[in-house]
Amino acid sequence: MEGLTIPGSNDIIDAYSRIEGSVNRTPVLASTQLNSIFGCDIRFKCENFQKVGAFKFRGATNALAMLSAEELSRGVVTHSSGNHAAALSLAAGNRGSKAYIVMPDNSPAVKKAAVAGYGAEISFCKPTLAAREEAAQRIIDNTGATFIHPYDNFNVICGQGTAALELYEEHKDLDIVLCPVGGGGLLSGTATYIKGVNPSISVFAAEPAGADDAFRSFKSGEFISTHIPNTIADGLLTTLSERTFKIISEKVDDIFTADDATIVECMRLIWERMKIIVEPSSAVTLAVIKLNPGIFRAKKVGVILSGGNVDLGSLPF
Amino acid sequence: MEGLTIPGSNDIIDAYSRIEGSVNRTPVLASTQLNSIFGCDIRFKCENFQKVGAFKFRGATNALAMLSAEELSRGVVTHSSGNHAAALSLAAGNRGSKAYIVMPDNSPAVKKAAVAGYGAEISFCKPTLAAREEAAQRIIDNTGATFIHPYDNFNVICGQGTAALELYEEHKDLDIVLCPVGGGGLLSGTATYIKGVNPSISVFAAEPAGADDAFRSFKSGEFISTHIPNTIADGLLTTLSERTFKIISEKVDDIFTADDATIVECMRLIWERMKIIVEPSSAVTLAVIKLNPGIFRAKKVGVILSGGNVDLGSLPF
Repeated sequence: MEGLTIPGSNDIIDAYSRIEGSVNRTPVLASTQLNSIFGCDIRFKCENFQKVGAFKFRGATNALAMLSAEELSRGVVTHSSGNHAAALSLAAGNRGSKAYIVMPDNSPAVKKAAVAGYGAEISFCKPTLAAREEAAQRIIDNTGATFIHPYDNFNVICGQGTAALELYEEHKDLDIVLCPVGGGGLLSGTATYIKGVNPSISVFAAEPAGADDAFRSFKSGEFISTHIPNTIADGLLTTLSERTFKIISEKVDDIFTADDATIVECMRLIWERMKIIVEPSSAVTLAVIKLNPGIFRAKKVGVILSGGNVDLGSLPF
Repeated sequence: MEGLTIPGSNDIIDAYSRIEGSVNRTPVLASTQLNSIFGCDIRFKCENFQKVGAFKFRGATNALAMLSAEELSRGVVTHSSGNHAAALSLAAGNRGSKAYIVMPDNSPAVKKAAVAGYGAEISFCKPTLAAREEAAQRIIDNTGATFIHPYDNFNVICGQGTAALELYEEHKDLDIVLCPVGGGGLLSGTATYIKGVNPSISVFAAEPAGADDAFRSFKSGEFISTHIPNTIADGLLTTLSERTFKIISEKVDDIFTADDATIVECMRLIWERMKIIVEPSSAVTLAVIKLNPGIFRAKKVGVILSGGNVDLGSLPF
């Protein structure tokens, strides 16, 4: 185990030099209509256009890039049913490595199909954390594969920070950078990079009120490691790790929460006005802007839209 | 009336010099997943990201740019419930002119609100062509406003052709350009520009099988001016005009049709794989590629995605 080492902005710049040719340089879009509605100048970093449809491909690609040839030959393993599983599967395949994915047996068929489509070997387990960890450990014991945690991993965090790097390269005059927080990988990478290169930019996080462990940990200064989430933002159900909590406590300026109704309303606004598809976990950012007009008014705000993977067969509108 | 004058590619280049600063230069996107599925290299010109969410803003802006100060002071009028109405309303407002829009009284509330939001004056009428034309004529008689037809208009056609101009500037090595056909404004402008600058590029059109008047006119050589359309592609319900039929007969290489089930399937593919929102009228292009693999295999195909205005409350999936 690597302990609680935390990165600096140079680590993110190094990560970018490793993954630059492998990840999409996603566009930064703006909408005059949304700017008019919310009274600020929002620049959306569109990680919904990233490979596998989410920023997670950046961290997974960087984690794979740090493995030796011998480690690559033994493969990588994670337990996840979401975007990290798909990202790790594609990133492993791109390096000629193999991904072992442990998924709860009640995962939606569409997610099983996505991961299988990227060539991963899927193991199913009961939908408990204990069963997932046990299944992953069995694979590690049998194969020697390297475990790649979705966010409690130095190299993953450095990869996620490269979205903010690209955004900052195009817009150095941002007043605020705002991104969602679930396990804290994206937020940790974002804050590490932005505060390293320009501490005058505020780094804010957006979290669903129904999964507000990061908000409560941040405000109380005490790390909350378990909670029972209840939110439509299915990419933000996890809690921080001690590592991401440490980074966020040091580098993030504030965390704001938003209720699910506002998240869905803002997701629909993005779809209708920008003609792009984002998942609820992305729209929590715009919901926070809507709920805190005084904080964002007349500011230039960089928003990281984290992903665009939704089940079109069961939309909330 | 201006008679059956038809443009050349220089007219489209002139139109572009007039409207370049007023319209969005929309991105050209590609999807490795879709290319892999369909076995060709597709470049999507994303007019769903155009102002008002559709290419129609190009034609309306050019039509407004050709009016004298005195004509602008009297305003413009059209009868439409769709993208042309919104486009003309915004284009008129941008020139300090007024748009009078005649809409059938059974138009969806969302369309009424969109047009009203752009500052137009809306008149409602019974949902028949005779009632629409009568209402428009009454406005012309009362105000002296200039009638701007959605597609049977030289300047509108020239404006629509500028989407193909931008596409060609970025991809001069296309084998095929494919766009939807309804009234034929976009297709006429596209074919006029592409055949003018590079006749070796094939220009194909995609039409819903349930509104196949252009297909039948093109194949028979006889202009069909009426039909009873039945398709989900609500932007393609109209028939050609004599002018657009003349242009298309001279310059288009072929027209293909697609059934609604394939249109919906391909619309969903675009949403899921590209994370962008397109309306059914745009997806008819990809449906034609799916239904004619031999025609498109291994070709570099420029596809014009015409718009992204859908009612998220009533999706076909």
